[in-house]
Amino acid sequence: MKLLRVGTAGAERPALLDAEGTLRDLSGTVADIDGALLADDAALARVRAAADAGTLPVVDPAGLRVGPPLARIGKVVCIGLNYHDHAAETGAEPPAEPVVFFKAADTVVGPDDTVLVPRGSVKTDWEVELAVVIGRTARYLESHEEALAHVAGYAVAHDVSEREFQIERGGTWDKGKNCETFNPLGPWLVTADEVADPQALGLRLWVNGELKQDGTTAQQIFPVAEVVRYVSQFMTLYPGDVINTGTPAGVALGQPEPKPYLRAGDVVELEIDGLGRQRQELKGA
Amino acid sequence: MKLLRVGTAGAERPALLDAEGTLRDLSGTVADIDGALLADDAALARVRAAADAGTLPVVDPAGLRVGPPLARIGKVVCIGLNYHDHAAETGAEPPAEPVVFFKAADTVVGPDDTVLVPRGSVKTDWEVELAVVIGRTARYLESHEEALAHVAGYAVAHDVSEREFQIERGGTWDKGKNCETFNPLGPWLVTADEVADPQALGLRLWVNGELKQDGTTAQQIFPVAEVVRYVSQFMTLYPGDVINTGTPAGVALGQPEPKPYLRAGDVVELEIDGLGRQRQELKGA
Repeated sequence: MKLLRVGTAGAERPALLDAEGTLRDLSGTVADIDGALLADDAALARVRAAADAGTLPVVDPAGLRVGPPLARIGKVVCIGLNYHDHAAETGAEPPAEPVVFFKAADTVVGPDDTVLVPRGSVKTDWEVELAVVIGRTARYLESHEEALAHVAGYAVAHDVSEREFQIERGGTWDKGKNCETFNPLGPWLVTADEVADPQALGLRLWVNGELKQDGTTAQQIFPVAEVVRYVSQFMTLYPGDVINTGTPAGVALGQPEPKPYLRAGDVVELEIDGLGRQRQELKGA
Repeated sequence: MKLLRVGTAGAERPALLDAEGTLRDLSGTVADIDGALLADDAALARVRAAADAGTLPVVDPAGLRVGPPLARIGKVVCIGLNYHDHAAETGAEPPAEPVVFFKAADTVVGPDDTVLVPRGSVKTDWEVELAVVIGRTARYLESHEEALAHVAGYAVAHDVSEREFQIERGGTWDKGKNCETFNPLGPWLVTADEVADPQALGLRLWVNGELKQDGTTAQQIFPVAEVVRYVSQFMTLYPGDVINTGTPAGVALGQPEPKPYLRAGDVVELEIDGLGRQRQELKGA
């Protein structure tokens, strides 16, 4: 299923994109799309039955904002340097084990919402990423099979990054990853049953119409199942948590000088096979 | 005021410790103690008036669990190496600007709840810290005065840390800071009006009755006002966000080998002048 949330920011209602691509209202079926829903097999089965019956009210998508496809996100765990080609372009050795950092859940916005270039920023960069949405509480998972059984679904994430804040201002990467609006998510939460192989997804990103990233999750150093298993050794993952699994090559940081960092007025578009497409305009904060 | 939340985990109710040290029920006055309350001057005034009137129902504290004093915490921003004596004991130069990392809000537990030593951990360490609770949305603050006006109050935080996960496992510190139960908070949220000078608070921590940390916030490299101002340049702070402002000298990491890291069965107690006292037993995860 393709689950989404539509409406003004903070007042989104749950919806579903059916097999024919028709937008359907879910607000009569479930309260919202959040961790509680993803952990509730009976509620998910109810949504699926309603979708299959074809009886859900049709919603006119014209002019309708799409919000993030998940409400009440707990935490956003991020994996750094997780693609062979991206590690190479940044001059880093492929890490021996996953690099973990965080984005605050309050950085999450809708897939087509404005992204703010922070005040004083001259190195705002793009990163298309496969986001994994957790559906079951995960502690000390032992196998890849067990890890994938804790995944509710997948989404497109834009891990917007300020490289000066991240690398040149002391301390950990978090300082350059948590500016307001720095994590567009969606348009859809695609349930795991519709993603046959999370390691065979093409990811692409354009800036002002020019293709900048054109990768595949086959290039991930640590595949989704290993990322989920690994992270669960260090922290407990809860339904409604999100893991951004890293970006392929093609970010501004990896380009020759002068690096083409984002400026107010730029337009970024990104997509992942089967997970939909985002479009953001950059504005000053 | 000393605000707190009492009852079983996940079902705490709001309460107040009055000027005579009597525990009073607030559940008839406010729904909970959270960011929404802290941002609502009228609701806070109602609590204060009820407290002053002395009419709030008395609660028997015997056998009552104390939870974290804040519900629905947004994010927990942490400042590393923020005390001159602690930077010295770890062999680090005092940082030129604040070191920022994160704890997930789901690591927060009550002040006397069990702390779990992670599986495989041999370097679980303690850190008593002054926590700052945000009461107003803070973006790009310009002065220390403005920064302090965004602080709702203060609390004791225990920034439990796994040093192998933090330092020896690749990537950023977050990996050793986010294990389950790693952020006991409370017992009280003490409103800012009761803390005359946040830079003149003694902090102490004991392990199995032996004093390990005995510091003062006067040793902070970046004082509370600067921390709040600084962090607001990189991310937006919202009501109900927490900043752990760093730990003074005396952690296990700073001791000669063999370093006395925490083990199941150990008891940690910690306190800050005017903010109350915590006590945790360590158990295996």
